[in-house]
Amino acid sequence: MKVRLKKVTIVAESLLRTQLLKLLAGQGVTGHTITLAEGSGSRGVRASEWEGRNIQIDTIVDDDTADLLMREIAARFFDHFAVIAYSCDVEVLRGEKFVRPEAP
Amino acid sequence: MKVRLKKVTIVAESLLRTQLLKLLAGQGVTGHTITLAEGSGSRGVRASEWEGRNIQIDTIVDDDTADLLMREIAARFFDHFAVIAYSCDVEVLRGEKFVRPEAP
Amino acid sequence: MKVRLKKVTIVAESLLRTQLLKLLAGQGVTGHTITLAEGSGSRGVRASEWEGRNIQIDTIVDDDTADLLMREIAARFFDHFAVIAYSCDVEVLRGEKFVRPEAP
Repeated sequence: MKVRLKKVTIVAESLLRTQLLKLLAGQGVTGHTITLAEGSGSRGVRASEWEGRNIQIDTIVDDDTADLLMREIAARFFDHFAVIAYSCDVEVLRGEKFVRPEAP
Repeated sequence: MKVRLKKVTIVAESLLRTQLLKLLAGQGVTGHTITLAEGSGSRGVRASEWEGRNIQIDTIVDDDTADLLMREIAARFFDHFAVIAYSCDVEVLRGEKFVRPEAP
Repeated sequence: MKVRLKKVTIVAESLLRTQLLKLLAGQGVTGHTITLAEGSGSRGVRASEWEGRNIQIDTIVDDDTADLLMREIAARFFDHFAVIAYSCDVEVLRGEKFVRPEAP
């Protein structure tokens, strides 16, 4: 009943919200939580872009989807935006619903 | 001095706030953090319930309490509300105070 | 390309914000995310201090920096403030930028 899954966290400027949610939807990810955040980037040259509101998107997915999401986020955003993406192991009760029914 | 514990995260509609905090208190859990969140549920039929504000409750507890909390949340809320509960391993400095003094 | 690092989370009263960010900067930590939170502390005697707004600071660092940060936070704040600090393992895409260039 307890399923080991990945929580993928994406921290980005608010203006990327729609694009990031589309990217998630494109991978069949239908559940997410958004919290508002502020922060300073780890790249000094981009500090100004991090002023104001950022968003943190959390989503729970299986291992393969986590890898796919993170690679796609890197490919699409890392060169031009101050986006951070990381994953961690979580144990989810009734986690079956977070596992994608079909393979990629 | 560094103790391995579980962080239990509960994401739910704001209206469940009091009930969830009572459930935590009933398990002897006295510390928690609440952040405001929004999100879309993973169950399409419930999407409308997820509009507006949700809350994310984080609490750090020992392994047994984590299991108890998650099972109780599942039993009480999963059939009727769009509640998500998951846990992850954390290392806590001076974590002794998060360990319950007496057994369940 | 995927680097295993630590996410250190600090939950504290808002008034400690500047001091905590200075402490991070003093360890060479230049990136962080702040979210607003509320909560009740695990120490009953301090409950009143936890009313109102707290902040949650998340930062991704290498293992040594995580240990240093947490020990310094404990030494400076634990006796006088209701501060919680914990770490968890994360996998970060293009995580190289989170690793400090020089040793402590």
